[in-house]
Amino acid sequence: MANSRNRSSLLSVDAALDRILASLSPTMPTHLLLGDALGQILAEDIHAKLTLPPHDVSAMDGYAVRADDVADCPAKLTRVGESAAGHPWTGRVETGQAVRIFTGGYVPDGADTIIIQENVDATSEADQTVITVREGAARGRYVRPAGLDISAGELALGKGTLLSARCIGLAIAAGATSALVSQPPRIGILSTGDELVPSGQTPGPGQIISSNAAFLSAFVKSCGAEAVDLGIAADKSGAVSDAVMAATNLDLVVTTGGASVGNHDHIVGDLADGALDFWKIAMRPGKPLIWGKIGKTPLLGLPGNPVSTAVCALVFLAPAISKLAGGTYQQHLFSAAITTDLPENDQRQDYIRATMGRADHGVTSVRPAPRQDSSMMATLAHADAFIVRPPFDPAKTAGDIVTILPMPRLF
Amino acid sequence: MANSRNRSSLLSVDAALDRILASLSPTMPTHLLLGDALGQILAEDIHAKLTLPPHDVSAMDGYAVRADDVADCPAKLTRVGESAAGHPWTGRVETGQAVRIFTGGYVPDGADTIIIQENVDATSEADQTVITVREGAARGRYVRPAGLDISAGELALGKGTLLSARCIGLAIAAGATSALVSQPPRIGILSTGDELVPSGQTPGPGQIISSNAAFLSAFVKSCGAEAVDLGIAADKSGAVSDAVMAATNLDLVVTTGGASVGNHDHIVGDLADGALDFWKIAMRPGKPLIWGKIGKTPLLGLPGNPVSTAVCALVFLAPAISKLAGGTYQQHLFSAAITTDLPENDQRQDYIRATMGRADHGVTSVRPAPRQDSSMMATLAHADAFIVRPPFDPAKTAGDIVTILPMPRLF
Repeated sequence: MANSRNRSSLLSVDAALDRILASLSPTMPTHLLLGDALGQILAEDIHAKLTLPPHDVSAMDGYAVRADDVADCPAKLTRVGESAAGHPWTGRVETGQAVRIFTGGYVPDGADTIIIQENVDATSEADQTVITVREGAARGRYVRPAGLDISAGELALGKGTLLSARCIGLAIAAGATSALVSQPPRIGILSTGDELVPSGQTPGPGQIISSNAAFLSAFVKSCGAEAVDLGIAADKSGAVSDAVMAATNLDLVVTTGGASVGNHDHIVGDLADGALDFWKIAMRPGKPLIWGKIGKTPLLGLPGNPVSTAVCALVFLAPAISKLAGGTYQQHLFSAAITTDLPENDQRQDYIRATMGRADHGVTSVRPAPRQDSSMMATLAHADAFIVRPPFDPAKTAGDIVTILPMPRLF
Repeated sequence: MANSRNRSSLLSVDAALDRILASLSPTMPTHLLLGDALGQILAEDIHAKLTLPPHDVSAMDGYAVRADDVADCPAKLTRVGESAAGHPWTGRVETGQAVRIFTGGYVPDGADTIIIQENVDATSEADQTVITVREGAARGRYVRPAGLDISAGELALGKGTLLSARCIGLAIAAGATSALVSQPPRIGILSTGDELVPSGQTPGPGQIISSNAAFLSAFVKSCGAEAVDLGIAADKSGAVSDAVMAATNLDLVVTTGGASVGNHDHIVGDLADGALDFWKIAMRPGKPLIWGKIGKTPLLGLPGNPVSTAVCALVFLAPAISKLAGGTYQQHLFSAAITTDLPENDQRQDYIRATMGRADHGVTSVRPAPRQDSSMMATLAHADAFIVRPPFDPAKTAGDIVTILPMPRLF
């Protein structure tokens, strides 16, 4: 059991995430017009002000009738009016009568059933025309009862709901115009490493461009938060805490690099002992992870290899941003048929860059990139899913079903 | 074969989408800083200006050695220098020598292999210290060769690529600072229907709030395009064309409502005969669909029921926006275990609102909403996937595997 010693010193992905989320609280709420609130998270329940539909309405174009009148068909009825969306007919349908009706039109009093126009012979669209119903319908057919969608007073959207386009549509339909949402969390982004130069500069010998910050800034925005660039901290004691203390109103600081045990990594030294949470996660890429505080600002320290940064951002930072905004974050995993063999996994949960395709029988297939070094950004950029392998996952053969996490579109 | 007559008059979803996409051309390109380009689509190839890594570098913290020196272990070597990220050591490692190295540090000339620090005993971090390598490594171990990620001149991102956070990270790392991207398409949104009042007004008898426009505006933004509110057109001849002709520089107009065969629907009359493409799609919800032109502006006419609007927006409008922006759009379908029985499907491809969960063995499960009326927005807002059933899909039993389309986060 050579692994057991290592295993016991590693924290599982889920346990690490639980610890991070447990110590974060939502930002202050603010009112936004719903039209400006896409991607924000509700800080209050929204109850419907209106009943939808407000009245029994027709689901089809046809004729509103009394079901008893069309029990025996063909049946002849006299057209007495017309009800269209926005133009209700206010009379009452008596025995032997029908009202021409269009989708969304109010079902008039007395009528209880809609006969679709395909089942009616009518010689004109004039009132007093005698129409022939060729095929009847059960009582209530094609009637949408008032409140079918939602009733006034009912909960439309709960606190914590992400305002997607469809949720905004519902809220607007139910009579809301604005909503209390959590203010977008302000996420400070700080790169560490003497080898880094900002984008736009030409790297000298030993230098590379600070691209993790560019990734994180875009990713943070894709999560609905505000990205605050804190620049690049040198590899020296105090540089990280100085940069964080100089920034204001941050809900969270994310650093990249500086989380390993090498002499040249100083973030850990900048965190007070009591404010440091944990170190090694049972995941690949992304083993070293820092969770602590500088002053009152929570600090998430991601590893510096770009793919490790990205995977940890998806696994830890995105849920943290949702929590800061008062919401929840759920990553759905799916099944796919793998195109190549994979050896048995070790004690770390593996996130393997892969590309989805369509397998023979319509099932999604997934092809792992041949090399998974955590410095390889191009492989990440061209992948669209991770194969997620739990610790000690047995060896896989081409065609086997594996678990995948599709990459979010803007990840 | 009661269905065959209907079937022959319906267009498949794929065929309809092909026709729509075939007639759309990308917008004009514009230069954007990469930091502002999240979600935009590349209108040019981006080639790497830099080689990544620029030199052989270490993937671990440890010692850079000559593999021949550690063929027999334990082996004693003399530390002669230190190479850290950003601080290259410029000497040459000779036989019997080792250089302390940290992740990302340049591998010095002469050295060809990294021994991780866990396999080395060293009494100090001073040069001239004699270290003991307890366990050797194959030549090249933990060395990332120059260009492992990408080499200068190589294609980093192809024209048509969606600029996700990870693609922006790669482009920045490879030396790009800005990119030519397609201008966000300008999408006009026009609601039709005498029953509609704008959000903020109190609906009178027979009236409802125009919520499809709010949905579409948010959805269009979530697709990276610009939403242009064209208001509400009355149910009268010429109203749609007047509203479209009054707007400028639109790449596409989307209407909702007015696409059925009722007397109160006038969009079709506003389209010149030759400019009208098709009518009935073999899908549910969303059968009636208009594809035409008003003047030179392409017009996509979606059905008016809110869920039909939303499903057609996801299935037709999102790919149309991607095409207008010079990109492609791929919707990956996954498998899930259904929680309830479903009857055999008819000739229409069915998009069933459903909620994903976790089934017994880690597989995603999917629960269809009990009622699927296309007016029911609340059901849509609370769903997170569509079960997609092809035409004539056989009956399903609880536990069977079905195909699902997870809803995009901001849909």
